[in-house]
Amino acid sequence: MLFKNISILNESFEIEENMYVGIDGEKITYISKEAPKRGFGRVYDGTGKLLMSGFVNTHAHSPMALMRGYGENMALQDWLNKKIFPFEAKLTGDAVYWATMLAMAESVRFGIVSTTDMYYFSEDMVRAIAESGTKNNLSRSITCFDDSELWELESAKEMKSLFETYHNAEGGRIKVDMSIHAEYTSTSKIVRQMAEYTFSIGANMHVHLSETQSEHEECKARHGMTPAAYFNRLGLFDTPTTAAHCVWIEGEDFEILKEKGVTVASNPVSNMKLASGVCNVPKLLDMGINVSLGTDSVASNNSLNYIEEMKYFATAAKERVKDPTAVTPKQALRAATSSGAQSQGRSDTGVLARGKKADLIVLDISGPHMHPVHSLINNLVYSASGSDVVLTMADGKILYENGKYFTIDLERAVYETERAAKKILQAL
Amino acid sequence: MLFKNISILNESFEIEENMYVGIDGEKITYISKEAPKRGFGRVYDGTGKLLMSGFVNTHAHSPMALMRGYGENMALQDWLNKKIFPFEAKLTGDAVYWATMLAMAESVRFGIVSTTDMYYFSEDMVRAIAESGTKNNLSRSITCFDDSELWELESAKEMKSLFETYHNAEGGRIKVDMSIHAEYTSTSKIVRQMAEYTFSIGANMHVHLSETQSEHEECKARHGMTPAAYFNRLGLFDTPTTAAHCVWIEGEDFEILKEKGVTVASNPVSNMKLASGVCNVPKLLDMGINVSLGTDSVASNNSLNYIEEMKYFATAAKERVKDPTAVTPKQALRAATSSGAQSQGRSDTGVLARGKKADLIVLDISGPHMHPVHSLINNLVYSASGSDVVLTMADGKILYENGKYFTIDLERAVYETERAAKKILQAL
Repeated sequence: MLFKNISILNESFEIEENMYVGIDGEKITYISKEAPKRGFGRVYDGTGKLLMSGFVNTHAHSPMALMRGYGENMALQDWLNKKIFPFEAKLTGDAVYWATMLAMAESVRFGIVSTTDMYYFSEDMVRAIAESGTKNNLSRSITCFDDSELWELESAKEMKSLFETYHNAEGGRIKVDMSIHAEYTSTSKIVRQMAEYTFSIGANMHVHLSETQSEHEECKARHGMTPAAYFNRLGLFDTPTTAAHCVWIEGEDFEILKEKGVTVASNPVSNMKLASGVCNVPKLLDMGINVSLGTDSVASNNSLNYIEEMKYFATAAKERVKDPTAVTPKQALRAATSSGAQSQGRSDTGVLARGKKADLIVLDISGPHMHPVHSLINNLVYSASGSDVVLTMADGKILYENGKYFTIDLERAVYETERAAKKILQAL
Repeated sequence: MLFKNISILNESFEIEENMYVGIDGEKITYISKEAPKRGFGRVYDGTGKLLMSGFVNTHAHSPMALMRGYGENMALQDWLNKKIFPFEAKLTGDAVYWATMLAMAESVRFGIVSTTDMYYFSEDMVRAIAESGTKNNLSRSITCFDDSELWELESAKEMKSLFETYHNAEGGRIKVDMSIHAEYTSTSKIVRQMAEYTFSIGANMHVHLSETQSEHEECKARHGMTPAAYFNRLGLFDTPTTAAHCVWIEGEDFEILKEKGVTVASNPVSNMKLASGVCNVPKLLDMGINVSLGTDSVASNNSLNYIEEMKYFATAAKERVKDPTAVTPKQALRAATSSGAQSQGRSDTGVLARGKKADLIVLDISGPHMHPVHSLINNLVYSASGSDVVLTMADGKILYENGKYFTIDLERAVYETERAAKKILQAL
């Protein structure tokens, strides 16, 4: 496939106009101002369009699409205890499969090519992800509230089997990460054993960290140290880790994350909607910590509108540090793409560059809201609408184009997810 | 025109499904579960769609579309002094006309039917607004830095002439409001004289109020009172007033706004992007103060994506008061429609009800991000994308439908605005 006359966001996160970009199979093989001398198959006229790396959503719980808009405007504990937990207790594999499929449809519609997911019913998720053609770093999240050993837990056995069966499946599209849900939902013993196991198999770690003030303060009361210090002491960060939220990290926590190369996955919409706070992204970036972007679940977002998420990311940070110069559009675009790929351990994607995987999106930049163009990078982050994405491609395969889904039966995914949600509500 | 099989957001801000809504001329004349017994002309199949009141944008500076994305990531004073003010010094009527036209195209694309605009070059704005078919409460904003009398000011003469010529023009689509720009850009004498004149002609007042901390604190240092107390003492609030921003209002200010029936036009995106702060919307709503929603200019937003603005409105408020139960979706939808109409002094619009003007929008609610539907009202505010608007109508006339603009030559508006912006940049 050959894109012609198209603007691109290049690997330096600069705009180049009137470019040719050629794809062979899964990879980007040609980027030039000059027309190529050979054919690449389909020719895509990019007039009024921008081609860039697809988005990487580094913190999600895709099956929670089932609970979109269910129980709004509630305090966090009420919401969890009265709505989310009882609902989740009735989940079925079928419900998870269809909700994941719906989430993947929404993802590609909004330009998300790759997702980092933390949930359970993992086999059902894998099935939907594999069929959808998207990329995913999937983890079966571990919780433990008693004095069990890691391998006494059914969840741990599932997690191990998941890794052994599916890690790097589908030509690497699917990766299996390890996950401790959070400090307050596990024991020191389990965390230490998970850290050792994860290190031994060379996997990535995904964990919730200091999302709410109460979680953060209760950890300090319980262990005499912050969640970041606690996990670090137990060796969790000895393996490449993505820590979601990090709203309440403080003091030495920043140095720990930097020293250990932990990626912070910031989820500004969910954090603001749940009134959890705003992550100090400018400080993290200033320190050179890898900061990526996540949507969290649509039960607390309530969409996978990733361009909107980028705007929240940049604007919430400015308000957080009372400085309109904080977080540049380039930093926001980097967080949304290459920093996410780094977090997922995918060095072969996250930028539009020769030799990289063709994980790409096309944006329509012809709308009234995208003019005038003093700076297309500014317009991309602050003016674009989520639905400006008109084409989404993973490994060179088109998954979405102009309202059409090529790997997902959207109508059926909507129907089955609605039906599954109703069935669960009836069983409550 | 007859909408059939359509979901509606009714005047109680509740959803009703499978409805018939008929339009005769400018008005809504039929709303029922039953099919009407007579014809209404064109029949619109509303399957997978929602019909609701169009949005009312109660604080904008439309011609600043010229400066979208121009000079980002700068501190407020730098941005104004190095970028905005020098640019504005080179404005022409032609530039303002085309930029207003572009802003109106963007408005109808995102479902905004009516705008409250504060700027100058008003005749050029009126021309674009009249042609675009949108509604507008327009004001020629007054500033004064010396000891002039009101009627010595050229701007005041323009303002008076504008009111006398265009107030209630185009069948009431265009209204002319009065405007004092802000406390720090005018004198007590001018404010008092404007208050008296505005009261005498029965016009509405539009003013910036306590947008930034420095503006608020400097007023207290200068006058020994807050901007709200200052304006109130000078009689400005004796006329129906819309006060934009109100981020830093405190103490008695809330009682003043309530007692005087002032509408607060909140601009959450712009306030967050400029790191000005977050308006205490929950407190205003609890006190029964009319709170509406504005985009501010796209130089500081940087779009007129009104559904996004609603989401910011609700989520920023939760973070502001650290309470996820603050600002319900219904309150957000009310602020976006009927509270805006009230602010504009338009009792004939702002809700979908029999006898009201057909100022309506249709949203496509069939996308993956709008399912499942536990609550369509929740999905509307938190899950919808700005571009889900597929039809925008003012006074029963369709202005936008499925990418087509019926009153605006979008291609020309883009071209001329780009050209005007370039010309101004060259002259700097």
